[in-house]
Amino acid sequence: MKMFRVLIAITFIWSLNACERPAEQMERPAYALAIHGGAGVIKAELMSPEQDSLYRNSLHEALSAGEEILKAGGSSLDAVITAITILEDNPLFNAGCGAVFNANGFIEHDASIMQGSDKNAGAVGAVRNIKNPILAARQVMEASLHVFLVREGAEQFAALQGLQIVDPSWFMVSKQRKKYEDTKATMLEREIPLGEKHGTVGAVALDNAGNLAAGTSTGGMHFKHQGRLGDSPVIGAGTWADNASCAVSATGHGEYFIRLGVAQDIASRMVYGGQSLNEAADQVVMHELVQLDAGGGIIALDKDGNICMPFNTAGMFRASVKAGELPFIGLYASDSLLVN
Amino acid sequence: MKMFRVLIAITFIWSLNACERPAEQMERPAYALAIHGGAGVIKAELMSPEQDSLYRNSLHEALSAGEEILKAGGSSLDAVITAITILEDNPLFNAGCGAVFNANGFIEHDASIMQGSDKNAGAVGAVRNIKNPILAARQVMEASLHVFLVREGAEQFAALQGLQIVDPSWFMVSKQRKKYEDTKATMLEREIPLGEKHGTVGAVALDNAGNLAAGTSTGGMHFKHQGRLGDSPVIGAGTWADNASCAVSATGHGEYFIRLGVAQDIASRMVYGGQSLNEAADQVVMHELVQLDAGGGIIALDKDGNICMPFNTAGMFRASVKAGELPFIGLYASDSLLVN
Repeated sequence: MKMFRVLIAITFIWSLNACERPAEQMERPAYALAIHGGAGVIKAELMSPEQDSLYRNSLHEALSAGEEILKAGGSSLDAVITAITILEDNPLFNAGCGAVFNANGFIEHDASIMQGSDKNAGAVGAVRNIKNPILAARQVMEASLHVFLVREGAEQFAALQGLQIVDPSWFMVSKQRKKYEDTKATMLEREIPLGEKHGTVGAVALDNAGNLAAGTSTGGMHFKHQGRLGDSPVIGAGTWADNASCAVSATGHGEYFIRLGVAQDIASRMVYGGQSLNEAADQVVMHELVQLDAGGGIIALDKDGNICMPFNTAGMFRASVKAGELPFIGLYASDSLLVN
Repeated sequence: MKMFRVLIAITFIWSLNACERPAEQMERPAYALAIHGGAGVIKAELMSPEQDSLYRNSLHEALSAGEEILKAGGSSLDAVITAITILEDNPLFNAGCGAVFNANGFIEHDASIMQGSDKNAGAVGAVRNIKNPILAARQVMEASLHVFLVREGAEQFAALQGLQIVDPSWFMVSKQRKKYEDTKATMLEREIPLGEKHGTVGAVALDNAGNLAAGTSTGGMHFKHQGRLGDSPVIGAGTWADNASCAVSATGHGEYFIRLGVAQDIASRMVYGGQSLNEAADQVVMHELVQLDAGGGIIALDKDGNICMPFNTAGMFRASVKAGELPFIGLYASDSLLVN
């Protein structure tokens, strides 16, 4: 019994640190990749064995596809885009197909991408008919004079760029429609638990050339106001990449992540404060955000290939891999104890 | 002749430092306020005496209205909102009435506000019919669950909050319409000079309670793509306020300001790097932005009441005042030499 308590205490302390690999990397791996599928009330006891497997397999699929690109010498940008596109297309996650409904009963997507080599970036917000919002974010970065486009302007630009446009119903899955209708019918009677409100997908990668990239995509907050943007399309809040420091993709209660400039703050702590990735990410996620009662987490990867994935919620869908290592897949806090 | 050259050199060095009051404040003033009306190709030789006076009087009017609030013990937030509202209503500046046209021939406004006491914030993007976008940003902060609303969602929210809604033609002035029509007719033949493309209004204030606030409002970039957001509505890029460090409002080539997270970066350099406001603002505006060939400037105010207004363009419409001091009004780099 005492040993069990000690084990619980160790688990707790480990989850507070919340970095998958506590030791700092000594030699930069040929590549590294981390992805997430949102943070929230993700607990083993709320998940059937089938659901558990489904999430793990889905994360593994996106991670593997991204890893293939990096293994073949591809860019971190391509790896991030590939992994996120797969997560957007997967109805399990709150991005692309399967995204949450807003208070008006339809879906608006946000996404952004940033590359660490020149800190170039692209973002789209409140877009309704672009099949893969992360591809639109990339086109904004690479083929427009701008960094950030929203609504019709973004939708028209994406169509002109030849991206796939779909009927808004394409994104709607019955689980999210039911949640919307339940909330609409009972909105005065209950608060939606945080874990059901949020969700995001994202990826960070380091390629063989030493270039970092980060991307994030989401349907935003369940029952959000029409036109609401969270942190996901905001460069500096939900997404940041700089070869001088790190790449970060965030997930959680976006309003607070904007107010703290979470992704950029982690990088600034490293650049100006001399903090390690672990220290910086831990301070922001486990202290600054917690002080504001803001649930969520981040995935981050520094220029030396160190990976850190802290979250202050019960769980976070996440996965990571480095050249020459087996992949790590985690859903719950307890997964942190898995040996990779 | 030699003396003239020395004077030119001194002027140049002074403008590089670009802070109105180089000495750091020893004792916090009861209040302080700075405003801007955009940076660009603002040169004495391009301005008639009448235009020069018009700009100076307009800046003085907005500064005085904000100062009245601070002098009476009002909040920095109210002072910032008041000054910006006056600049939005003034057709001389690219915000509210008088804003630039986008490539589709209409106007979309961006604005944001942030208060340093709790880092709460509000922003609106690509809104078309809200008379004073900065008031909508404030309502988003104070009366919604969100931080950032765009397009119809923001417009509907503003209307429900009782803000004044106007016909989009209300914002259109003949000077901007002519610029739009000229560009449309000749867009393949000439590039618009930077100074004619951008423009923004903003304010930063410190009140007697020690609270900082910052706000920014703009019509964005001349002939921009529909739905384009610049740095003005992006918390961390165009606007930042934190009582622990400083308040910043930016103006310039917004895409680069987003990519560098300009406003938040200045604060981070102070908090984590121990830089003074002058050092931090100078590094970002005169070095980081210049390296990217990104024109613009910022106004900033630290918690001790130091004011800094660097710009890397020929000029910036700007004004500042502190309790017990005469106001400073500047248009050109040479105005920095004026004794306040």
